Amino acid sequence: MVKVGIINATGYAGAELARLLYSHPEAQLESISGRSAAGKALAEVFPHLASYDLTIGEELGEVDFAFSALPHAASAAACAPLVRAGIPVVDISADFRLRDPAEYADWYGADHPAPELLSQAVYGLTELNREAVRQSKLIANPGCFPEGALLALAPAVKAGIIGPEIIVDSKSGISGAGRGLDLKYHFGEADESVSAYGLSGHRHLPEIVQELAAMTRGILSTCYAPLTAALSDGAVQELYRDFYAEEPFVRVVDSPPATKQTRGNNMCLVYPTVDARTEWLVVVSVLDNLVKGAAGQAIQNMNAMLGFAETTGLDAPAVYP
Amino acid sequence: MVKVGIINATGYAGAELARLLYSHPEAQLESISGRSAAGKALAEVFPHLASYDLTIGEELGEVDFAFSALPHAASAAACAPLVRAGIPVVDISADFRLRDPAEYADWYGADHPAPELLSQAVYGLTELNREAVRQSKLIANPGCFPEGALLALAPAVKAGIIGPEIIVDSKSGISGAGRGLDLKYHFGEADESVSAYGLSGHRHLPEIVQELAAMTRGILSTCYAPLTAALSDGAVQELYRDFYAEEPFVRVVDSPPATKQTRGNNMCLVYPTVDARTEWLVVVSVLDNLVKGAAGQAIQNMNAMLGFAETTGLDAPAVYP
Amino acid sequence: MVKVGIINATGYAGAELARLLYSHPEAQLESISGRSAAGKALAEVFPHLASYDLTIGEELGEVDFAFSALPHAASAAACAPLVRAGIPVVDISADFRLRDPAEYADWYGADHPAPELLSQAVYGLTELNREAVRQSKLIANPGCFPEGALLALAPAVKAGIIGPEIIVDSKSGISGAGRGLDLKYHFGEADESVSAYGLSGHRHLPEIVQELAAMTRGILSTCYAPLTAALSDGAVQELYRDFYAEEPFVRVVDSPPATKQTRGNNMCLVYPTVDARTEWLVVVSVLDNLVKGAAGQAIQNMNAMLGFAETTGLDAPAVYP
Amino acid sequence: MVKVGIINATGYAGAELARLLYSHPEAQLESISGRSAAGKALAEVFPHLASYDLTIGEELGEVDFAFSALPHAASAAACAPLVRAGIPVVDISADFRLRDPAEYADWYGADHPAPELLSQAVYGLTELNREAVRQSKLIANPGCFPEGALLALAPAVKAGIIGPEIIVDSKSGISGAGRGLDLKYHFGEADESVSAYGLSGHRHLPEIVQELAAMTRGILSTCYAPLTAALSDGAVQELYRDFYAEEPFVRVVDSPPATKQTRGNNMCLVYPTVDARTEWLVVVSVLDNLVKGAAGQAIQNMNAMLGFAETTGLDAPAVYP
Repeated sequence: MVKVGIINATGYAGAELARLLYSHPEAQLESISGRSAAGKALAEVFPHLASYDLTIGEELGEVDFAFSALPHAASAAACAPLVRAGIPVVDISADFRLRDPAEYADWYGADHPAPELLSQAVYGLTELNREAVRQSKLIANPGCFPEGALLALAPAVKAGIIGPEIIVDSKSGISGAGRGLDLKYHFGEADESVSAYGLSGHRHLPEIVQELAAMTRGILSTCYAPLTAALSDGAVQELYRDFYAEEPFVRVVDSPPATKQTRGNNMCLVYPTVDARTEWLVVVSVLDNLVKGAAGQAIQNMNAMLGFAETTGLDAPAVYP
Repeated sequence: MVKVGIINATGYAGAELARLLYSHPEAQLESISGRSAAGKALAEVFPHLASYDLTIGEELGEVDFAFSALPHAASAAACAPLVRAGIPVVDISADFRLRDPAEYADWYGADHPAPELLSQAVYGLTELNREAVRQSKLIANPGCFPEGALLALAPAVKAGIIGPEIIVDSKSGISGAGRGLDLKYHFGEADESVSAYGLSGHRHLPEIVQELAAMTRGILSTCYAPLTAALSDGAVQELYRDFYAEEPFVRVVDSPPATKQTRGNNMCLVYPTVDARTEWLVVVSVLDNLVKGAAGQAIQNMNAMLGFAETTGLDAPAVYP
Repeated sequence: MVKVGIINATGYAGAELARLLYSHPEAQLESISGRSAAGKALAEVFPHLASYDLTIGEELGEVDFAFSALPHAASAAACAPLVRAGIPVVDISADFRLRDPAEYADWYGADHPAPELLSQAVYGLTELNREAVRQSKLIANPGCFPEGALLALAPAVKAGIIGPEIIVDSKSGISGAGRGLDLKYHFGEADESVSAYGLSGHRHLPEIVQELAAMTRGILSTCYAPLTAALSDGAVQELYRDFYAEEPFVRVVDSPPATKQTRGNNMCLVYPTVDARTEWLVVVSVLDNLVKGAAGQAIQNMNAMLGFAETTGLDAPAVYP
Repeated sequence: MVKVGIINATGYAGAELARLLYSHPEAQLESISGRSAAGKALAEVFPHLASYDLTIGEELGEVDFAFSALPHAASAAACAPLVRAGIPVVDISADFRLRDPAEYADWYGADHPAPELLSQAVYGLTELNREAVRQSKLIANPGCFPEGALLALAPAVKAGIIGPEIIVDSKSGISGAGRGLDLKYHFGEADESVSAYGLSGHRHLPEIVQELAAMTRGILSTCYAPLTAALSDGAVQELYRDFYAEEPFVRVVDSPPATKQTRGNNMCLVYPTVDARTEWLVVVSVLDNLVKGAAGQAIQNMNAMLGFAETTGLDAPAVYP
């Protein structure tokens, strides 16, 4: 049984990690930290986690594996000593997503707290980066917006069937608001994410993040790109189904999906279609921003890093309706 | 591994049974029926259940245990042959909740389809009726409204601390609407449920069922009753905590709970308080109408009937927020 | 044209006063104050009020009539000099609802800022207190919770058909949260309101204020009381219809109303019914907490005080759905 | 006082016409029709319209002006005799939006019921087509989706600053669902609408209509198009402000607007911005689909046709929050 710790268990992503780990047969949540709430029981902060008998500490105790759900900058500072001590870490913040410390300083207005670790960090979109994730000790978990966009666009980009004028229009539930939505920030995330996978020729990516107060969880991304050759709906569907044939957490569907169909679980549903009149590809993807967009993806990465089946502890169906 | 079947898996309660059984380590969903959708894949009707590779049949196949999620009358007719064949059954409909066939005819305007089974049926509010449930082969699963009211009031009634003027004010999420909300029907349910537990002196129970379209899942019940003796908040809290000390699915809380804290799981949260000025007891309870109010309670009953720990397959935390 | 001012136009109640006054043919909003936002345009704080060309001042300018939408204590202090100067005032806060300065000190933990005005203040539930409102220069506008409860119960209390065990169960939209929900406070409000109308024998009034995050506007109150004599549904309906026959803003309806049916307008819908089995009266009322529960009621009072028809500027239908 | 009639007052658009006309000082709603509900009082079908003392007829009575809120095909058939009799009509359906009867037959699978009137019909987007509206007796009221997109894009198209790769991503509240959402249909609407205003070179318009169940009213459209020349945010804002300087119902705003800011009123808020990195224009517009997207726009057209100020009866602020 792997002893797991969560740094900053008092935000939405940290609480969701705790929720999902409760059902994980190979991992045991042993230690949680969160300075403002240090000394309180987890159940006091999150009544829905009352099954845990854990007290929030100032610092993490001894663990075999750690997740960090701290905000950026604080997160790198907290992860660095663990990584140096040989403890594998998945960082949910953006701190290890960029490769270049100068670019980090540019985005965040401060020097990176652990620049020497940037070259070890692997961008943890498991579906597109599996081998590197398996061999890494430090994972930069993807942001929820690029997650949905990259899974929606990767098959088309890899197949070379679309031109560079890519538009991504994302709508998020309000639980995303804790993560400090900011247009520039998300441009940054998305751009880095895309270039990380050889999509670097595809830089035209105006993304508008629209926070819709009316749903709590979920991200729906609609992606538009011009096809470079005439392709039928059927051909595109087949290309997508082939691409994701072996993936347990991406399902290509044949009608527009709703965010509710993924609530609480680690699925991403992808619906590709062709606007025949204009010959543009339109792809809709949905996922739960707190699961596939954060905590579930992080556990999927842990599973890959530790040699477990990626679905371990993550196979519960969505809570619908 | 117990082979389980669900009669009418195409409604909300049936789908929720399938969702919860997916994580049950001792039971395997083997067969599902649902006439209107017969021949379709379960994944086609409910995309969130796509992990199942099951086709909906006209009739149930061979199983060791069955749940019926049919509407009343149809349900008794479908359960009867199974019960007669010795297969244990949990019926989610109201068909076996009343003891007297004449009363059934009176409420539903039709003769009971299997009156000879009424005497075998046990009202499946496990917390209040555990021994009988364990020895039964036919369980009448409680309705979601009496479930919340009974768990809120049982400690006070058993302790004899309240008078008969009991008011229950319940608010349901819209997923309850599939079950044919009707004031009279719910009076009937509630009345029967109450008298089943020796509360028969307590017949003053005007209940208004208010369906609030603005939440999908959840029932919040507020119960009011005059105290027969002056009791402090603390004394009532202690009485409630003692009463439910060993129950895994009822938690007495010390501030007003929200339905979201139970979304997707089998908990009922109960908050008792005293209005000191008027010496009335006020108890608020919350639960997920599809889980503790239907499918989760049904699986808890199955666990009790088959000798499993009652929490088997039901211990996932709530999906919050 | 009456020149009107709003003290503290930057909260929900103040903004709603501004919205409604925009369509008032006899009154012109001339001056608004709000210290934290002083110097800003109203349109900047509330984009939906961009039709106004008004700047928020530190203090109110010269006006013929004033509304105060300040929180309690601050409100009395701001109203007092206006009242002393002979300017009629409607105070939306609770400051002038209690008669006894000692009781005020008891509830609020501070001395009343203008105790000598308490005896002049009139409780502005126009329907029940019309003559006094017409002759007053200082109105204590009712709180939104007692408003719904009092309109639901007044006909029954006046007719002497119910006993003293009255239960009021109120559900509010989240826009009520700005007003500092607190159980005790609302007990206080409700109790005072009730006793103000000769209901003082009816002191058994446990009220649970439940804030439901899922709707923005609206209060739904369900009131329960034992009938002192057997009465049919029809007889109670008739009694209620007679009682409110001349009232433009209370409509007795013959099926359970929804809060949406009053959104944005000054109506209160009342649905009385009898639970025949228990002989209890159950009355449901709905209103928009920001209109009939605050700003609309305040303008109705202004109309009565200034001799306008009470419906002036208040006759727009609800915005449904 | 103009005597007004509404054909089919029993849908959302018809009810909204009735709601808005209630406050119109120059028009009086005299007659309403709606076959399925014929004989019922309007108040019975729509409790929020109980201020009207009108009975729904099988046919419209004698009126000076008519609105049709019937579905397509039925609407043209009902409007035709009125137009032939010289009564001015605003048709809210799509029946008179296309110019070519063959195209109509193509989209709707049936011959146009009154093809000879197509050439008289004027597309009633008042802001872009004011003079023609003033002189017309038959207005094809725009659909709610093209309304938002056209007002968002018109300044840029007229100024020639964008290329033809236009993307429109629209999200609608559920009240739009009564109008039979269908991807093809809306492509048709949008395409026609655009070409009607000399935008015909701009045919690249993949539009995804996403119905989000979580809000009742409102359309938020995000429009993307490549700039043909480098332009700053400020330059684009100025161009938009100049374009709409005299319009009472379009306001150019300087931060992303929310649909709630227009709820219940006739405003369209437009927010243009430039993505500097990619040199694409991004414009967000919001409006209330039932008001500016249907009934309010129809009354604005009536005002223009009858020589009233366009704001007559339409100047109430939005109902926020």
